[in-house]
Amino acid sequence: MGTVVALAGQVGGAKLAEGLQRLRGRDLTVIVNTGDDYEHLGLAFSPDLDTTLYVLAGIAGAAAAWEPEGESRVVHAMVKALGGPDRPLLGDRSLAMPLLRSEGLAAGRRLSAIGADFCRHLGIAARVLPMSDDAVRTHVLTAEGAVSFHEYFHELGCEPPVLGFQYAGAEDARPSDEVFDALHAADLEAVVICPANPYHTIRPILEVNGMKELLRKRGAPIVAVTPIVGGKALRGSAGKMMRELGREPSPRGVAGEYLRLIDGFVIDREDEHSAEAVRSLGIECLAAATIMRAPEDRVALAQAVLDFAAAIREKRAAEVE
Amino acid sequence: MGTVVALAGQVGGAKLAEGLQRLRGRDLTVIVNTGDDYEHLGLAFSPDLDTTLYVLAGIAGAAAAWEPEGESRVVHAMVKALGGPDRPLLGDRSLAMPLLRSEGLAAGRRLSAIGADFCRHLGIAARVLPMSDDAVRTHVLTAEGAVSFHEYFHELGCEPPVLGFQYAGAEDARPSDEVFDALHAADLEAVVICPANPYHTIRPILEVNGMKELLRKRGAPIVAVTPIVGGKALRGSAGKMMRELGREPSPRGVAGEYLRLIDGFVIDREDEHSAEAVRSLGIECLAAATIMRAPEDRVALAQAVLDFAAAIREKRAAEVE
Repeated sequence: MGTVVALAGQVGGAKLAEGLQRLRGRDLTVIVNTGDDYEHLGLAFSPDLDTTLYVLAGIAGAAAAWEPEGESRVVHAMVKALGGPDRPLLGDRSLAMPLLRSEGLAAGRRLSAIGADFCRHLGIAARVLPMSDDAVRTHVLTAEGAVSFHEYFHELGCEPPVLGFQYAGAEDARPSDEVFDALHAADLEAVVICPANPYHTIRPILEVNGMKELLRKRGAPIVAVTPIVGGKALRGSAGKMMRELGREPSPRGVAGEYLRLIDGFVIDREDEHSAEAVRSLGIECLAAATIMRAPEDRVALAQAVLDFAAAIREKRAAEVE
Repeated sequence: MGTVVALAGQVGGAKLAEGLQRLRGRDLTVIVNTGDDYEHLGLAFSPDLDTTLYVLAGIAGAAAAWEPEGESRVVHAMVKALGGPDRPLLGDRSLAMPLLRSEGLAAGRRLSAIGADFCRHLGIAARVLPMSDDAVRTHVLTAEGAVSFHEYFHELGCEPPVLGFQYAGAEDARPSDEVFDALHAADLEAVVICPANPYHTIRPILEVNGMKELLRKRGAPIVAVTPIVGGKALRGSAGKMMRELGREPSPRGVAGEYLRLIDGFVIDREDEHSAEAVRSLGIECLAAATIMRAPEDRVALAQAVLDFAAAIREKRAAEVE
């Protein structure tokens, strides 16, 4: 078996990454969105990186997988009592990574190196990498102007209609050496785009300078998994954003966002009727159980995705012959 | 009634300041040691300032008054799990002030202004001021060289014998405008040196450039309260340090540290036999109950100290006539 690279962010992305990790262990590299990163109380928050680490380490909350199990909020209550900001609602354990990250960055360390330390101490088998060590910040364009995704999410509650997105810094951001190496691996078998918001989770990764070319470099099949089931995003605001952007909030609509990049697209069984619509875009399509409630659902979906990628590889090989 | 200025730090100092606050409310200004301040995980910790605020706000722990009541340590446990430092053992609620302080300092605000905000939000009547907005760092001289007080306390457990102290930055540090104003008040009635380690709590305040002159400016009596009872420091390492420095670990020994500064010295009733030894230094002496177990002990001691200062004032006035 070869190596696998996953692009991830949000809870859904982390869950599929965890399923892939159970199958591939150290042969999995997860490239995580950092476009949602923000500074708060002087600390460097990387919500997608941290969520991914909690889920991969098996310490994420059952109901709130974006933070550690049994999270408390006494620091936040005290910050508020002292006149500090009331949002976002900081968890206590969730402060540990930002604290150590801020200290490391101030000492001149790379985001990738700091994250590698966390992985080691948490016993995470997969390699988890930020998409870049350079800062990229996703901005949401609204009628009132551009706001950071952090502000859009935490302060505006994702309310204002979305007119578009900007990925500030992406043009000048480079994939790290570790990302470069993972995508250059001679035995790279598949690239998996995990189920996550295409605009503020996957797109920022793709916009990093040279990333799209790197993803295609080895010719390994690129397979994406839908974050939309039955017209709705499982979590988050993907459906709402797609409607506001004039896109169809459907599996086909998401697949269209990855046109000319992906070879295969995994839709939910519930949306099996959409398979032909996806194929009409020139993209292979598989219907599978994409909703990951139990841990075994993650592994089953991961296996289905890897099998799908293998089938695409074989089909291509047959075409060449 | 006029105004009162107290010099404080540590739990004992904070307790007497709280007693004074009950008697004088807004007419009390507390000048707090910042020589023990340190940076940890990129945050600006001011242990004496924070302890003073917890005690004055009535939210300090009953057993551990240097931190808020009911303190937990889940952030520390997570920091440790991620490979971060194991010491000092950070409390969760205790992180709020350092977080907001660091953010404020990074934004160019003064330590005094940040603390004033905390006081307002915590409903603290007294004015609590850092001794200076400029950094002073107390270093302990040991056979192995000079170490920061933070290191001496947290990492070396106050073990190495003390050869002396240095107050780095004190020469260049200035009292803030607020400290200046409080000590220039026309109705300044007394300056109270609260019971605290003379070397790393009170001395750093006195070493701030111009502070000793300011304290004497209005001619208000300066009265100190012993941190040593029966040859032992109530908490902390004052007795140990005095022995290592070749000083007598007694009320007289502490009074001697404030020679040519204080007009009166309050010893514990248990040490009443030492009163004459203190008076032999040319310092007025009062024996009172200095151990503050219950809240009413703080008020009683505060009242005794203020009455003692008033008596010294009257005695002086009589001498002038």
